[in-house]
Amino acid sequence: MRQDVVERSMVTKTDIDLPPEFVTYYYNQTLDHFNYKYESYLTFQQQYVVNSKYWGGANSSSPIFVYTGDEAGLYGDVISTSGFMIDLASRFQGLILYIEHRYYGDSMPLGYKQIEGQNDSTLGFFSSSQALADYAQLIIDLKRNLSATNCPVIAIGGSYGGMLASWFRLKYPHIAIGALASSAPILYFDDITPQNGYYVTATKDFRETSENCYNTIRQSWFEIDKVALQQNGLMELSNIFNSCMPLYSSEELKNYLSFVYLFSAQYDNPPYNLVSHICNGIDEAPEGTDILGKVAIGLNASFFGGRSCNNVIEVKPNNRSAWYWQTCTEMVMPIGCGENETMFQASPFDIENYTRTCQDLFGVSPRPHWITTEFGGHDIKSVLGNFASNIIFSNGLRDPYSAGGVLQNISDSIVAVFTKEGAHGLDLSTPSESDPDWLVAQRDKEVSIIGDWLGDYNAKLGGKK
Amino acid sequence: MRQDVVERSMVTKTDIDLPPEFVTYYYNQTLDHFNYKYESYLTFQQQYVVNSKYWGGANSSSPIFVYTGDEAGLYGDVISTSGFMIDLASRFQGLILYIEHRYYGDSMPLGYKQIEGQNDSTLGFFSSSQALADYAQLIIDLKRNLSATNCPVIAIGGSYGGMLASWFRLKYPHIAIGALASSAPILYFDDITPQNGYYVTATKDFRETSENCYNTIRQSWFEIDKVALQQNGLMELSNIFNSCMPLYSSEELKNYLSFVYLFSAQYDNPPYNLVSHICNGIDEAPEGTDILGKVAIGLNASFFGGRSCNNVIEVKPNNRSAWYWQTCTEMVMPIGCGENETMFQASPFDIENYTRTCQDLFGVSPRPHWITTEFGGHDIKSVLGNFASNIIFSNGLRDPYSAGGVLQNISDSIVAVFTKEGAHGLDLSTPSESDPDWLVAQRDKEVSIIGDWLGDYNAKLGGKK
Repeated sequence: MRQDVVERSMVTKTDIDLPPEFVTYYYNQTLDHFNYKYESYLTFQQQYVVNSKYWGGANSSSPIFVYTGDEAGLYGDVISTSGFMIDLASRFQGLILYIEHRYYGDSMPLGYKQIEGQNDSTLGFFSSSQALADYAQLIIDLKRNLSATNCPVIAIGGSYGGMLASWFRLKYPHIAIGALASSAPILYFDDITPQNGYYVTATKDFRETSENCYNTIRQSWFEIDKVALQQNGLMELSNIFNSCMPLYSSEELKNYLSFVYLFSAQYDNPPYNLVSHICNGIDEAPEGTDILGKVAIGLNASFFGGRSCNNVIEVKPNNRSAWYWQTCTEMVMPIGCGENETMFQASPFDIENYTRTCQDLFGVSPRPHWITTEFGGHDIKSVLGNFASNIIFSNGLRDPYSAGGVLQNISDSIVAVFTKEGAHGLDLSTPSESDPDWLVAQRDKEVSIIGDWLGDYNAKLGGKK
Repeated sequence: MRQDVVERSMVTKTDIDLPPEFVTYYYNQTLDHFNYKYESYLTFQQQYVVNSKYWGGANSSSPIFVYTGDEAGLYGDVISTSGFMIDLASRFQGLILYIEHRYYGDSMPLGYKQIEGQNDSTLGFFSSSQALADYAQLIIDLKRNLSATNCPVIAIGGSYGGMLASWFRLKYPHIAIGALASSAPILYFDDITPQNGYYVTATKDFRETSENCYNTIRQSWFEIDKVALQQNGLMELSNIFNSCMPLYSSEELKNYLSFVYLFSAQYDNPPYNLVSHICNGIDEAPEGTDILGKVAIGLNASFFGGRSCNNVIEVKPNNRSAWYWQTCTEMVMPIGCGENETMFQASPFDIENYTRTCQDLFGVSPRPHWITTEFGGHDIKSVLGNFASNIIFSNGLRDPYSAGGVLQNISDSIVAVFTKEGAHGLDLSTPSESDPDWLVAQRDKEVSIIGDWLGDYNAKLGGKK
């Protein structure tokens, strides 16, 4: 839960009308799978969406592709930005099942409509283990209702949802025969990944795009601080960066710029090339423009720029976002960087501050070692090399989160499929004619592996009949 | 939770003084691993016992054998009846760690000393998933404290504890490199195993011991009912069976006899040969003795006989036993048998009655499909054949629970090791000079497999250094 780390839920979404083949249902889900208290037996309505347009049906044991819902409601852009699911379904005559994660979208337990105003007494059932058990129970029941017990299930997800997809395969191999975990930083816990990996990767993205751009940004933090200390310095910064509201601190500006750079690195995917936009702005600034002027031009050229003024939003944890609850409980990714390690200002990870913030926001303390206790991560190659199978960990190395991803094959069937050029969650997006060859090749490889899993499954099933 | 099915916790235990190399500790355990409510963060003192007499130490990466505590306190007969742990430790220079299961023995949360008088508000945290997470957390912390992070852990348990050992390997492969699951009926859930498997196996034990014995018992239920219907019939039955207290129903007697037969079949292990005692009694009854007389002689010759009178205990679920809480929540093994299927009286499994009893005892409803949802079981060979490794499922085919055990190799490293002659949990008991060859061979095979796991682990560890 870094102030300046980008999460899916931070991107504004608008509800999108889906074509009629996407049908919405609600499942009567158990509130607490692991305990037997009175309230454990309460239920909530969990939203899920089924697309059966391509399905070959239960008799042909056609597959079910399950989108393991992540930190966003399904009816934001989730379904429309995971078009690779449709591609897979059409290739393999698959049913598509999107399951919304508890406490997101329409799947809010206990009668609430939003996170704000809740505390641990109602949010307390909000955990990754509960979410995985939700998926298990829902899938089993849905398959029974469809008489589709023999249909193989493949879990698919991206980012946090990618972690869930891989963990679902690991914890529920009797339900999912395989998983495609896209941009899933399952190794960004405890001390498995260097804390600054996220910032180092983002820095590399900028430096590879333009050495001048990288240098300009790297030097800009000092310049901002210098101006801020001058008389009327904040007003001058407000002018330079054309902020919609007067800045009240240089931190505010620096955090926002960091956010813009990190977001741009994280989603530095074709066809938008977010980093290039910033760097082109900086590199093509009129001669004589000083560092801050260049950085301001970079901001204006960014995904967030081009408006009549720059809305310097305060990028920090809040109690309105469900994702912050998760980071305040178990999704403790120790992301930070020290002085002069990257092009970013120093921002070390500090568990004490972190815990204090969580106490303030939700009245809970994080359990920083829980994820590795429950799901592992240390020595993953030794642990899973002789255990488990059928997981694709896909990454784009431009994604800062790829620093905590699985980038090595663990075994013949737990494989890393990555592209040097891609960033966060690119492979799950809808294939397009204009996709670069390396992306087409990445998806083709994934299709081929999944095809092998299904072939093996059907061969065994045939043998049993 | 059958009236007449035998559980470990039903056997009376007395506290036993252990030799000084068994050292008792308490761990500050998290009450609720999967939620983040206020009470989730409460802790309780979990008892564990360490024997480091044989340990080679952390530097030599010597193994840690973890006894995954089952439905009994450690300081009953658990430690003294699992002497194979000591044998393994001495062979492999292992540390032995016995972890008590929450809500048994001294590991009672929330200040209670016993189960009776509690309800779901305090017992609600009592589940197998919580217990497995307890083991995970305790083992990780203990290894860190011993600087033994590199030491391989092998989970070992019997009966319910055997299920836990195998599930621990499946769910926490990053913590345990393998598991020995002795007499673990992990397939006795849902409809995976025929409901009457338990009774069929017990019947087979008797029939193989003596056809006459089997026939006598099979006919005795009708005879008991017949006498009970006569005037003063219950008094006559009380006399025939020399009951300490007058019988108040024929059901009481029949349930008790069933219990004695099932217990004897379950623990029909050398050197006691419990079934033979009963059958010898019956077979050697004086000529002219009628069926009930023979059965009464059988009872007197049994493990429970030989006293001045027979204490016909009422064998039925109660709210004093922690195990019944477990059967009333998730450990729903549908064990039953119909008319004329076995030598036992009909006793079909009836989930509605079962649920009613649980509501009466604890105010909870069972979740009969939870275990297969969480841990699988259906199609285990297909599911685990291509997933997981390093589990020994050991059984003795005289054990009625072996009907729900894994009796086929699932893969090269998930193997079934069983003996025709053994019964429940025999391999875990302390090896003795008088052990029959087949038992020695069973344990030797287990030792050899575990030795291979440790060899592979150390070879990889050596390669990494």
